[in-house]
Amino acid sequence: MSMIDFTTGLNNLAIETPSWAYGNSGTRFKVFTQHGVPRDPFEKITDAAQVHAFTGAAPTVALHIPWDRVSDFAALATHATDQGVKLGAINANVFQDDDYMLGSVTNPDPRVRRKAIDHLLECVDIMDVTGSRDLKLWFSDGTNYPGQDDIRARQDRLSEALAEVYDRLGDGQRILLEYKLFEPAFYTMDVPDWGTSFLHCIALGPKATVCVDTGHHAPGTNIEFIVAMLLRAGRLGAFDFNSRFYADDDLMVGAADPFQLFRIMHEVVRGGGLDPATGVAFMLDQCHNIEPKIQGQIRSVMNAQEATAKALLVDADALKAAQSAGDVLGANAVLMDAYNTDVRPLLASWREERGLAADPMAAYKASGYFDKIVAERVGGTQAGWGA
Amino acid sequence: MSMIDFTTGLNNLAIETPSWAYGNSGTRFKVFTQHGVPRDPFEKITDAAQVHAFTGAAPTVALHIPWDRVSDFAALATHATDQGVKLGAINANVFQDDDYMLGSVTNPDPRVRRKAIDHLLECVDIMDVTGSRDLKLWFSDGTNYPGQDDIRARQDRLSEALAEVYDRLGDGQRILLEYKLFEPAFYTMDVPDWGTSFLHCIALGPKATVCVDTGHHAPGTNIEFIVAMLLRAGRLGAFDFNSRFYADDDLMVGAADPFQLFRIMHEVVRGGGLDPATGVAFMLDQCHNIEPKIQGQIRSVMNAQEATAKALLVDADALKAAQSAGDVLGANAVLMDAYNTDVRPLLASWREERGLAADPMAAYKASGYFDKIVAERVGGTQAGWGA
Amino acid sequence: MSMIDFTTGLNNLAIETPSWAYGNSGTRFKVFTQHGVPRDPFEKITDAAQVHAFTGAAPTVALHIPWDRVSDFAALATHATDQGVKLGAINANVFQDDDYMLGSVTNPDPRVRRKAIDHLLECVDIMDVTGSRDLKLWFSDGTNYPGQDDIRARQDRLSEALAEVYDRLGDGQRILLEYKLFEPAFYTMDVPDWGTSFLHCIALGPKATVCVDTGHHAPGTNIEFIVAMLLRAGRLGAFDFNSRFYADDDLMVGAADPFQLFRIMHEVVRGGGLDPATGVAFMLDQCHNIEPKIQGQIRSVMNAQEATAKALLVDADALKAAQSAGDVLGANAVLMDAYNTDVRPLLASWREERGLAADPMAAYKASGYFDKIVAERVGGTQAGWGA
Amino acid sequence: MSMIDFTTGLNNLAIETPSWAYGNSGTRFKVFTQHGVPRDPFEKITDAAQVHAFTGAAPTVALHIPWDRVSDFAALATHATDQGVKLGAINANVFQDDDYMLGSVTNPDPRVRRKAIDHLLECVDIMDVTGSRDLKLWFSDGTNYPGQDDIRARQDRLSEALAEVYDRLGDGQRILLEYKLFEPAFYTMDVPDWGTSFLHCIALGPKATVCVDTGHHAPGTNIEFIVAMLLRAGRLGAFDFNSRFYADDDLMVGAADPFQLFRIMHEVVRGGGLDPATGVAFMLDQCHNIEPKIQGQIRSVMNAQEATAKALLVDADALKAAQSAGDVLGANAVLMDAYNTDVRPLLASWREERGLAADPMAAYKASGYFDKIVAERVGGTQAGWGA
Repeated sequence: MSMIDFTTGLNNLAIETPSWAYGNSGTRFKVFTQHGVPRDPFEKITDAAQVHAFTGAAPTVALHIPWDRVSDFAALATHATDQGVKLGAINANVFQDDDYMLGSVTNPDPRVRRKAIDHLLECVDIMDVTGSRDLKLWFSDGTNYPGQDDIRARQDRLSEALAEVYDRLGDGQRILLEYKLFEPAFYTMDVPDWGTSFLHCIALGPKATVCVDTGHHAPGTNIEFIVAMLLRAGRLGAFDFNSRFYADDDLMVGAADPFQLFRIMHEVVRGGGLDPATGVAFMLDQCHNIEPKIQGQIRSVMNAQEATAKALLVDADALKAAQSAGDVLGANAVLMDAYNTDVRPLLASWREERGLAADPMAAYKASGYFDKIVAERVGGTQAGWGA
Repeated sequence: MSMIDFTTGLNNLAIETPSWAYGNSGTRFKVFTQHGVPRDPFEKITDAAQVHAFTGAAPTVALHIPWDRVSDFAALATHATDQGVKLGAINANVFQDDDYMLGSVTNPDPRVRRKAIDHLLECVDIMDVTGSRDLKLWFSDGTNYPGQDDIRARQDRLSEALAEVYDRLGDGQRILLEYKLFEPAFYTMDVPDWGTSFLHCIALGPKATVCVDTGHHAPGTNIEFIVAMLLRAGRLGAFDFNSRFYADDDLMVGAADPFQLFRIMHEVVRGGGLDPATGVAFMLDQCHNIEPKIQGQIRSVMNAQEATAKALLVDADALKAAQSAGDVLGANAVLMDAYNTDVRPLLASWREERGLAADPMAAYKASGYFDKIVAERVGGTQAGWGA
Repeated sequence: MSMIDFTTGLNNLAIETPSWAYGNSGTRFKVFTQHGVPRDPFEKITDAAQVHAFTGAAPTVALHIPWDRVSDFAALATHATDQGVKLGAINANVFQDDDYMLGSVTNPDPRVRRKAIDHLLECVDIMDVTGSRDLKLWFSDGTNYPGQDDIRARQDRLSEALAEVYDRLGDGQRILLEYKLFEPAFYTMDVPDWGTSFLHCIALGPKATVCVDTGHHAPGTNIEFIVAMLLRAGRLGAFDFNSRFYADDDLMVGAADPFQLFRIMHEVVRGGGLDPATGVAFMLDQCHNIEPKIQGQIRSVMNAQEATAKALLVDADALKAAQSAGDVLGANAVLMDAYNTDVRPLLASWREERGLAADPMAAYKASGYFDKIVAERVGGTQAGWGA
Repeated sequence: MSMIDFTTGLNNLAIETPSWAYGNSGTRFKVFTQHGVPRDPFEKITDAAQVHAFTGAAPTVALHIPWDRVSDFAALATHATDQGVKLGAINANVFQDDDYMLGSVTNPDPRVRRKAIDHLLECVDIMDVTGSRDLKLWFSDGTNYPGQDDIRARQDRLSEALAEVYDRLGDGQRILLEYKLFEPAFYTMDVPDWGTSFLHCIALGPKATVCVDTGHHAPGTNIEFIVAMLLRAGRLGAFDFNSRFYADDDLMVGAADPFQLFRIMHEVVRGGGLDPATGVAFMLDQCHNIEPKIQGQIRSVMNAQEATAKALLVDADALKAAQSAGDVLGANAVLMDAYNTDVRPLLASWREERGLAADPMAAYKASGYFDKIVAERVGGTQAGWGA
C-alpha cells in the first residue's frame, strides 16, 4: 500500500492555475493571438473557474502583479468566490519596467533596488487583502556578460531585499523563492539553482521556502531528487508545473516527459507532500502559445492527476522490501507496475463520485463556453505578458 | 606558416552586420528600449555604416524582410553605397504572421504554404534589385507537442517549397539553409541540425548551402567539426555568428567562449574558408538586449577579427608535423601558442595601415555619433522585431 | 487504424540481443562481477537463447569481434541453431588494442590504419561463415584535445577505409555505420552525429546505412526526428537500443524515458520500419552493471514490445485528421491515448497464443536456469569487455 | 589594481597533484598502457616531485586509499620530503569493492555501510600519520534505475556516516565533500550537486566544506557562480581541477575552456580564495589517457597559473567603477583586457626569479627523466585505477 490513501491523496491534490495562462503568450519571435482571450483579471478568473468546474481539482487562481492589478482586490476576490474559486498566490513581477534592465533587487543602482523592494512590499499588501498565503518571487535578475556585475555583491543585495520582505510577512504568509538556470539573463542568473534558493531560505527563516519550476533546470538534472531533498529539509514550498524538451519551454505539464512527472509525484507522495500540513502548493506555470488556453489548462490538470494517481498506486511495502533486499529489477518493477497502469478509469470514477463528468475535456467542449467568450469578448485589449 | 597569408586572411574577412541588430530586441519577458534606435531601414544602414567606418571589416548589411521592406529597394541600395557599405543577404521572415502559428512552408494548410512560398519568391525579387547573392532561410517551423503534426509529411512539404524557390534563383544567387535545435518550436524543429540542412541542400543542387548559426546547437555539439565537414563537402555557405552560454542566447560573438570561436576560425582557415572562391559568408546575428547596439556590433567585429588573427597565426607546418607524429601534447601546444598570443597589437597595426584608428571602440565613442542620433531620432517608432 | 496490423507489427518485431550483454560490464570506476556469467561465446549464446525462449521475440544474437572470436564460427552457428536462435550482426571492435590509442581507421599512422581495416575485412569473412547480413561499425576514433589531429584528414582516412570495406561486401551484406557524440574521445569523435554517418553512407552506396544508438546523442536531441529522416531517406539500417538519463548510460531500453521509446517506435511504424522489406534491424546494446543480465535482457525485450504495441495502437486515421485540421491538442491526444493504454494484457495474450508464458520474467525466474548456470560455471574466466 | 598583489597571488597558488594521475587510466572501453608508469606509491611521488621541480607550484601530492596504501605511511611521507614535496589530501575510495555495487555509506545493507565507514575512519588514521589536513570524500553511491532505492533513506544514511567521520576529525582536519552529477550511477547520485554537498556541510559543522570538481556539473552550469556562492558562505574547501567538453572527461585543466578557468580564478581572487587563511585547496584530478602523464601534469599546472595570472591582472577598481555605473560593455572589457593579455612572459619571469627554467615543459623534456624511468621501471605492475 501507498503512504497515503489513494482517494485522500487525490482529494488533497489542489492545483492552482495561473491567471496569465488564459492570456496570450508566445516567444520572442511572435505572440500569436487567439480568440476569446480575457481582457482583464476578472475575465481571467472566470476562465480559471471553468477549469475547476470541469476538473474539480483547480480551486485557486494565482495572480501576477502588475498584470492583474485592479483597483479593488476585495472585489476581485469576491468575483472569484462567486465563480467557485479563490485567489491564490501573488506572483511579484519586477522584470517589465525599463528600470529593471540590469536587475531589480540586485540592480547596482540603489534607486532601482528601492523601487523593486517597494513593489514586493506592495504585493504583501495585496496578499493581506486577498488572503493569499504565498508570495512567489521569481527574479529575472542576472547578467549577460562576464564581468558585467559582481556576482557576490548581487547576492548581498538579494539577501538584503529578501530580508526586508521577509520581515513584512504576516502570520501565515510565506515567501516562495523560485530559481531558474537561465533566461532572460544569459551569463548568470542571481538565483540559478535550488542550492542558491535553499541557502537564502535558511538564512531568512521558516517562512521562506523553495519553489521548484519543473522547466528551470540544466539538462540532465534529476528534479525528483531535488524534491526529495527539499521535502526532507522541510523547505519545499511549491511547484510551478510545466514541461519541456529543451529549456523553459513551458509546455503542458506531463506533455514532454510523463514518466518524470510520475517520478516527481512519487517523491511527493513518499515525502508526505500530499499531506496539507506539509504545505506544498501545486501550481501550473505554462504558456499555451499555439493551443487553446482553457483546454490546455484542463489537460494539464488531468495530466497532473494521472501522474499523482499512478504515484498513489505504488505498492510502498513491496517497494521497500525490494529496495532493502537490494533487488534492483524487482524494486524498479514495483515502480513501473504503477506507472504502466492505465489510471484513466480510476480518475473517471473519482470524478463521477463528485458529480463531475468522467471526461472533463469533452464536457468542456460540449459546454459552449468557448463560443460564448469568443462572441462576448469583442473590443478591448487582450491580456498578455505586457505590463 | 599558415595556409593563407596573415594579412590576406584578415583582408578577406568581411563581416556582414544585420540590420536588426541596430533595432530594439529582447526576450519574451521584456524588450528594453534604448536611445537613438533607428526608426526605419535607412537609419539602420546609416548605423551599420558606422561599424564599417571604424573597423574597416563590415562592408555589407543584411536585410530582413518584411522588417526592412521599403517601397524602393534601389534607393536603399544607393543609400547604402552613399554611406560606404553595400546591401548583403536577404533574410526571409515567415514567422511573424498569425497565419504561421503552425508553420509556414511546412504548415498543414496548403493556403498558408502558398503564402509563405510567395514571400520567399518575393525575397528573390528583392535580391534581383539589391544585387544580393544570398537568400538566408531560417524557418521557425516545427511542432510543440508529440503527434501535433507528421514529421515526415512536413519534410515533404519543406522539400517541395525549397525546390520551388531554388528553381527561381538567378545566376550567382544562392540559398543559405539555416538549422536550429529549438525555439520557437519546442518539440520538433523542421530543420533542427546540420544533417537535415545538408540533406536538403544536396537534394536541391549546388546553389544550396548550409548556414551555421553558432547558437543553434545542442549542448556539447562540436561546432568546428561541423564546419570542417561542410567545408570538406563544399556546402558551407555562411555563418551566423553570435555566442551563447545556454541556448540561442545571441550574445556578442566570442563573448561566451572565445576559444571555441578560435577553433571554428582555425577550421575555416584549414578548409580554405577565407579564400573568397570558397564562398563562405561571415555574418553576425545577435541581439544587444542590454548593451549599446553599435558598440555591440563593433566589439563583435573585433572579436571575430581577433579569433581569425589567432587562427592565422597557427603554425600549420609544425601542427601537421606534430599531428603526423602522434604527438598529442605537441600538436595541442602548437594550436594553443597561437591562441595564447595577444593579437591586439597586430590588429591595431592592420587598422592603422588602412588609415583606421587603432582602437575602433574608443574612436567611435569619441566621434559623437551616438549623441547625434539620440538627439536626432525623436518621434517615430523604434525599429524592433515587430512586423 | 494503424499503418500495419497490430499482430503483424508485433510479430515482425525481432529484437537482436548482444552477446556482450551476458558478460560482465561496468564503468571506468569498477566492473562488478556477477554469478553465473558465461566464460565463452558458446555460453553467451546459450544465455541469449533463454531470452528468446521466454519472450519469443529475440531470435538472433549479435557477436563482437574479437570478444567472440572462436576457432570455428560454423560450430558456433550450429550451437546457436541447436539452442533455438541464430547468429546476427557482426560488431567490429577496433578499440581495444594499444595500437588504437590515437585511432583505428583514422589513425595518423598508416600501419595502424591497415591493421584496423584488415580487422574489418576479417569481420566480413566471418559474416560469410555465419551468414550474417550486417557489419556494425562503431569507431571509438577521435581526439581528446584541440589540434591533436586534423579533423578533415581523419575524414579522408575514414572515407578511404569505409570504401575498402564496402567493396568487400557480398550480396545481401550491409554496413551499419554507427555514430556517437563522445566517449571514449572527448574533443572530437570521427563520427559524432547522424549527419556524418549519413554523409558517408550516401558516398558509399545503397548497402551502407545508419545505425541509431539511442544513447549516443547530445542532450535535447530529438531522436525520433532522426529516425523519421532516415526512414524517409531509406538509410535507417538499425537501432542499438538502450536508455540513458545523462550520456551513454547503456541502461535497459525504456527504463529512463519510456515515452521517448514510444515516440521512436511511432515513427518506425509511421515510416514502415516494421515491414521487413525496409530492413531495419532492432538490436539491444546495453550494460547490466548492477542487475542480473538475462533478466535485464528479458525486461528490455518486454519494454521494446510494450512501446511497439502502444505505437501500433495509435489511430492513424484519427491522427492524420487532427493533424490536417491543425488541432494541436486533438492530435496530441490521439497519440497519448495509445501511450496511456496498458498494453500488458495484450502482450500477455500475444504470448499465450504462441505457447509462451504470459509473464516471461516470472517464467524465467521459475525455470531454475540461473541457479543452474551459477552451479555449472565454476572456474574459467568470466566474459567481459576485455580483449 | 587587483584585490591581491600579482606576485603574492601567484606565490600563494599551490597546486596539489594527484598520485593517480601518474598511473595508467582510461575509459570503460580501454586503458592504454604507457611507458615508464610507476609501480608503487613511492614512484608516483617521485614523478610528482618532478612536476614541482620544474614548475615550483606543485608542492604537495594527494593520495588515494586504497590505491596508495603502504605499510608505512611515515616512510612515504619521508620519501616525499626527500623528493622536495609533501603529502597532501587523503582521498577515500569506497567504490572498488564488489560489496559496494549498490553503494557504500548509503548502501541498503548495514554491513556494507559499516565497512565503508570503517574505511573512512581508517583514512583519518592515515591523515594523523601523514599530517594531511584534508579528507576528500567522493562517493560513487547512487542508483541506476528509478525505484531501485529510496532517495531520502539514502540521504539519512549518508548523513549518519558523515557525522561519524566528522566526529573523528582531529584539530586542523577537514572534510571536503565532493559532488558529481552522474557516473558511475546513472539515475541518481547521492551527492549530485553543490546544494546537496552544502546542505550536508552546514549540518556537520565548520570543518566540513565543499569540493568543486570542474567536470562534475550539468551542461550549462555556471561554475564560477557556485565558486562565488561558496566563498561568500565560507564553505569552499577545494577544487578538483580538470576540464571537459562533454561530461567528466577529466582532460587537462584549461584545455577545453580556458576562458571558464579564468572566470573561475577571477571569482577566487575576488572572494579572497588566494589568501591562505581562506583555506581553499587547489588540486588537479585528471586522467592522461593518451598523453604522457608527467607532461600532462606540468601543462596543467601551467594552465592553472596562466589563468590565475590573468585573473590577478584584472583591474579591480576599473571593474568596480564600470559595474557600479551599469556600463555593460565597459565592465566586460575590463575583464577581457586581462584575459586577452599574453601572460606567458610574466610567468617566465616569475619562474626565473625563483631559479626555475622559463619553460618548464622544455626543461623537463631536456632533463632525461622520462628516458630514465622508462629504462628503470621494468617489471612489476603498472599503477592504475585497479584496487
